[in-house]
Amino acid sequence: MTAPATNDLWGQLRTLGTHLTPELIQTTTELMTPLAARVGPDIVVHRDVAYGPDARHRLDVFVPAVGVMRAPVVVFVHGGGFVRGDKGAPDAPFYNNVGTWAARSGFIGVTMTYRLAPAATWPAGSEDVGAAVRFLRGSVGQWGGDPNGVILMGQSAGAVHVAGYVSMSRLHPAANAGIAGAAMFSGVYDVVRADRNPFQAAYYGDDATRWSEQSTLAQLAEAKLPCFYTVSELDPPDFQRQAAWLVEAHAARQGRWPRMLQLTGHNHISPVLLIGSAMDALGPELLRFIRSVRD
Amino acid sequence: MTAPATNDLWGQLRTLGTHLTPELIQTTTELMTPLAARVGPDIVVHRDVAYGPDARHRLDVFVPAVGVMRAPVVVFVHGGGFVRGDKGAPDAPFYNNVGTWAARSGFIGVTMTYRLAPAATWPAGSEDVGAAVRFLRGSVGQWGGDPNGVILMGQSAGAVHVAGYVSMSRLHPAANAGIAGAAMFSGVYDVVRADRNPFQAAYYGDDATRWSEQSTLAQLAEAKLPCFYTVSELDPPDFQRQAAWLVEAHAARQGRWPRMLQLTGHNHISPVLLIGSAMDALGPELLRFIRSVRD
Repeated sequence: MTAPATNDLWGQLRTLGTHLTPELIQTTTELMTPLAARVGPDIVVHRDVAYGPDARHRLDVFVPAVGVMRAPVVVFVHGGGFVRGDKGAPDAPFYNNVGTWAARSGFIGVTMTYRLAPAATWPAGSEDVGAAVRFLRGSVGQWGGDPNGVILMGQSAGAVHVAGYVSMSRLHPAANAGIAGAAMFSGVYDVVRADRNPFQAAYYGDDATRWSEQSTLAQLAEAKLPCFYTVSELDPPDFQRQAAWLVEAHAARQGRWPRMLQLTGHNHISPVLLIGSAMDALGPELLRFIRSVRD
Repeated sequence: MTAPATNDLWGQLRTLGTHLTPELIQTTTELMTPLAARVGPDIVVHRDVAYGPDARHRLDVFVPAVGVMRAPVVVFVHGGGFVRGDKGAPDAPFYNNVGTWAARSGFIGVTMTYRLAPAATWPAGSEDVGAAVRFLRGSVGQWGGDPNGVILMGQSAGAVHVAGYVSMSRLHPAANAGIAGAAMFSGVYDVVRADRNPFQAAYYGDDATRWSEQSTLAQLAEAKLPCFYTVSELDPPDFQRQAAWLVEAHAARQGRWPRMLQLTGHNHISPVLLIGSAMDALGPELLRFIRSVRD
């Protein structure tokens, strides 16, 4: 399709609605592609670095060409309903845009893949996030990253895997999960109350007696780790409820909201696709969050 | 006290904490006073216009000196724990700043007072908001305002009075409450689950059997009227829980959040005091909201 005028972008997103159909995903991606932040000569990218034995245990590292020292390390975990998704090939717009944005912000950017359901079931995704954290804590210094400055970010299923990692202390290499902060965009935190769908069944299984232990809501509600969440105005109802349950539980437990950004005009996938672009609403708030956890 | 450098403003607000002490209120007000938007020759103010028989049934009308036609009418309802507060004398910084901001945005700005507890108890505040709406629908055309373009805004107890007005159809002069939208900053919506305190007791009384009908949560959760809410990072726990309950009920009822802005770095009273100033985080989002309801 032809790229539309950007001043019509928000109207077109609104017209697509909230239901996560293949059409919504494809059209949103096509709308965002011309706007995507692209790698340039200012960034050195190390591709397909192995952080574990599986073919999906790979990550790309985005380093400012001018070099950095003890820089925050921003790790992005993609979505895809537990069963698909990728960090993106070298010439793909997404999610090279996220690594590019991170490096242009003076950070080490990392985009990672992980094992997928149904072959790899709960908690494989969070275990893989943990493996990547351990790898980066041991190796990111060579690129100028701060081993204690890892900040995890994930969207949708990626947010679930980040949440699971934060919630499972057995996966942690150090106190506070061994990271400086975590950002979760349009995630699912309460599996018990979640809408049932084939994607969640593929990852969590059908055993309702396990949904409580597979939930992260209670742990996130009492977490002292700095966390940043988003919900999109055009997120499907299940994700809107999940975000509401999270702030409700957090306020009940800690007397305050976690950082929660409601992204007006955005749908489930658009905020991350626009990170680093001229129409980016999420990146500036992430910079503010990252600065706050690095103080 | 001497006005501090503004670059230290956020640190000082954070140091004040979240507990609504007289010191927090006084110090926050003093910190904001040098920054307050002030009426200038670009604005004509009509003071103490009567909208009812009580001495507190008064409002100030801020009109752009260049004149407007069928402009939105932005009405601000002050806070003060139900028992105090005022729209502000002509030379006061607050809340002339809100009327000034509205007029400079091309709107008719209105700041209003209402009867106070314990002399005037529930639902006197919402009745007074309704009386002001009826008055403005009949009279605001003379200043260039759109009778169908009233947007109510309230903070704390003022948010409670706006919420009560929106929730009580017997107070409405027309469909959709006779207004175009409502904005509520750091309000209380569920009286049953609210922390007990003398301010609420003065307005609602001590009869627990009435707290359910005095609550507005259920009505707001199903309201079709465009509403905009805020919660401040440094709001006291009760207000944080109220905001969480609101989004939870709204998402449960409508499958989506209402517009909810979390104001980072702000306390219970600071966002409104900074409306129209160079450090205003709330005003730009209100403009976006007002534009959206006027489309």
